[in-house]
This record gives sequence, C-alpha cells and structure tokens, in this order.
Amino acid sequence: MESTDKPIALPPKAEAAPPAAAAKCPFNYSVVDVALRVLLFAASLSSVVVMVTSKQTKLVPMPGFPTGPRVTIPAKFNHSPALIYFIAALSVTGLYSIITTLASISIIQKPAYSKSFLLVFAFLDVVFVGIVASATGAAGDVGYIGLKGNSHVGWTKICGVYDKFCRHIGSSVALSLFAAILLVFLSMMSTFTLYKRIRD
Amino acid sequence: MESTDKPIALPPKAEAAPPAAAAKCPFNYSVVDVALRVLLFAASLSSVVVMVTSKQTKLVPMPGFPTGPRVTIPAKFNHSPALIYFIAALSVTGLYSIITTLASISIIQKPAYSKSFLLVFAFLDVVFVGIVASATGAAGDVGYIGLKGNSHVGWTKICGVYDKFCRHIGSSVALSLFAAILLVFLSMMSTFTLYKRIRD
Repeated sequence: MESTDKPIALPPKAEAAPPAAAAKCPFNYSVVDVALRVLLFAASLSSVVVMVTSKQTKLVPMPGFPTGPRVTIPAKFNHSPALIYFIAALSVTGLYSIITTLASISIIQKPAYSKSFLLVFAFLDVVFVGIVASATGAAGDVGYIGLKGNSHVGWTKICGVYDKFCRHIGSSVALSLFAAILLVFLSMMSTFTLYKRIRD
Repeated sequence: MESTDKPIALPPKAEAAPPAAAAKCPFNYSVVDVALRVLLFAASLSSVVVMVTSKQTKLVPMPGFPTGPRVTIPAKFNHSPALIYFIAALSVTGLYSIITTLASISIIQKPAYSKSFLLVFAFLDVVFVGIVASATGAAGDVGYIGLKGNSHVGWTKICGVYDKFCRHIGSSVALSLFAAILLVFLSMMSTFTLYKRIRD
C-alpha cells in the first residue's frame, strides 16, 4: 500500500513546479519588454521626424545688424551641431529598438536563451540611456537658449521669430526625454528579472 | 579503520568549498566596486570645483554695442541655467557616490546582503547615468556655443575673451563625461555579478 501511494503522489508535484515557474516568469517579462521596445521605437522615430521637419524660413534683419536690411533666413536643425548629434543619437536608438524588439520576440519563442539576452539588454540599455540623455541635454539647451536667450553674453532669443522651429525642438526634446525614461525602465526590468531568477 | 578515515577526509572538502566560492565572488566585485565609486566621487567633486572656480572678469564692449564703451563684465557659471543644472547634477552624484561607497564597504563586511545591494546599485546607477549624461550634454553644448558661436542665429563666440572660463567649462565637462562612463561600468558590473550568481 505504501509503495504504490508514494510514487503516485510525488512525481506530479516535482515535475509540475519547474515548468510553471520557468514559463510564467519569462513570458510576462518578455511581453512587457516587447511592448516597451515598440514604444521606444515610436518615441525615437517621432522625435527624429519632428526634429527634421522643424525647418522654418522667415524674413528677418541680418544677424549683427538689427536695423539693417531684412533678408530671408531659414532656421534648420543642421545649423546646430547639438541638434545634428541629437538626430544621430535618436536615429541609432530607433535602430537599436528594432533589433532588440526582434530579439525580445525571439525570447518569447525560445525562452532557453533568455538569461544571456537579459544580460545583453541590461548592458546595452545603460549605454543608450547615456546616449539619449546626453542628446536630450544638448538639444534641450539649444532650445532653452533659443527661447530665453542669454543677456550676459549677448545671445539673443530666436523663438519670437522662429516660433514653429522652436515648437518642433521642444516637442522633439520631450519625446527623447520620454525615450530616455523608457530605456531606464527597460534596463531596470532586465536587471530585476535576472535578480528574480536568483531568488526562484 | 574505515570509519576513522572517512570523517577526517570528507569534512574539510565539503566545508571548504562553499565559503571559498562565496567569499571569492563578492570580495573581488566589492573591492573593484568601492575603488570605482571612490573614483566617481573624485571625478564629480573635481568637476564641480573646476566649474565653480571658472569665474573670470574682463573689460569688454557692452553686449549689443561692439563699438561702444567698454565695461567690466564677469563670466560665471550661474549666468547659464544649463551650467547651474550641471553643478546640481554633479553635486548630487558626488553625494550618491559617498553613500554607495559606504554601502559597498558594508557588503565586504557582510556579504549576506550583497544580492539586494547589487540590485539597488544597478537600479540607481542607471538613473545617475541619465542625470550625469544629460548634464554633460547641456554643459558641453554651452561650452561649444561659447567656443564656436553660431553664425546662423548671431550667437557670438566668447572663448576668445573669456579664455579661462572656457578652459574650466571644458575640463569640467570632460570630468563629468568620465563620471558618466564610470557609472555605466558600475551599473554593468552590478548586473554582471547578479548574472554570475545565476550561473554559479
């Protein structure tokens, strides 16, 4: 009696536990991860598009001659090295988000590789946090000087004239700030999932 | 004979292995971690000091009147909101590096808590990567406009006049870039140590 009861009662418990834990954990993580990475792609792409379409042409006094003849001068993102860096950084981030979305989808299909992928994600996400945050800081600073000027060194504000240009810079910087915060969360999520694996 | 040989041979092996593995892994990590955090403190402190001591007073033409009367105008970091943000961000990073150095030393003394500390380190380091990188971007942009100017919008270069001020901004930005890279490495190291724990 005892020898027939024991084998029936034990195996289901021992076999059921590991697959449930293994399947539950990476699935939940990966779906949220894919969703956030798609959102990251959307944020970085729209940030680049808004910045690229910021060109505005106005009839303004020549720079340095406030009372001189008026000329048609365009304001474009490629007049400022900071905004060119911004475009480059956000474009690379968009490309990165496509690649990692595909990698994250592959984790859902083959959870066996998830540990190594999580480590690589955590590593690269931190690097991209730095890239996107520095681009946001640089472009935000150009936008701020454009909006407020700096009377101490005689840098004039330009947003009174180039209103559309400044609105585009502002929106683009806001989107890239959102992208940077998303990357911080993505990096934290990868690390936390690794941490949970230790405790399980 | 057999009963006396076995107890002598086995316990040293069984007991020696776990402490060696447990002591080796967190010890190596923690010492490097403490060293990097002390370096981070040095970098952020010197960055703040170099920026704060950048004040330079010069006899220059009044802003807006290149041929007008010459006046004594100082160039200080608090003339630019981007540089004030830079000081604030690097000061907070310096404080953070002191706290985490103490926490990292406490891990060496009590390795039992190291897993939770590693997770907290990995989380906070990523946030500080974002803060320091954005401050570096913003201050670097102010320095770049000061160095090169922007002829498209009439922002004049100021580094020809305020040479010491610009040298200080440049050095300070270089130090904060170093601090940001250190933080990326620290975050990666915490994550990698968590990853190694899974494999061990």
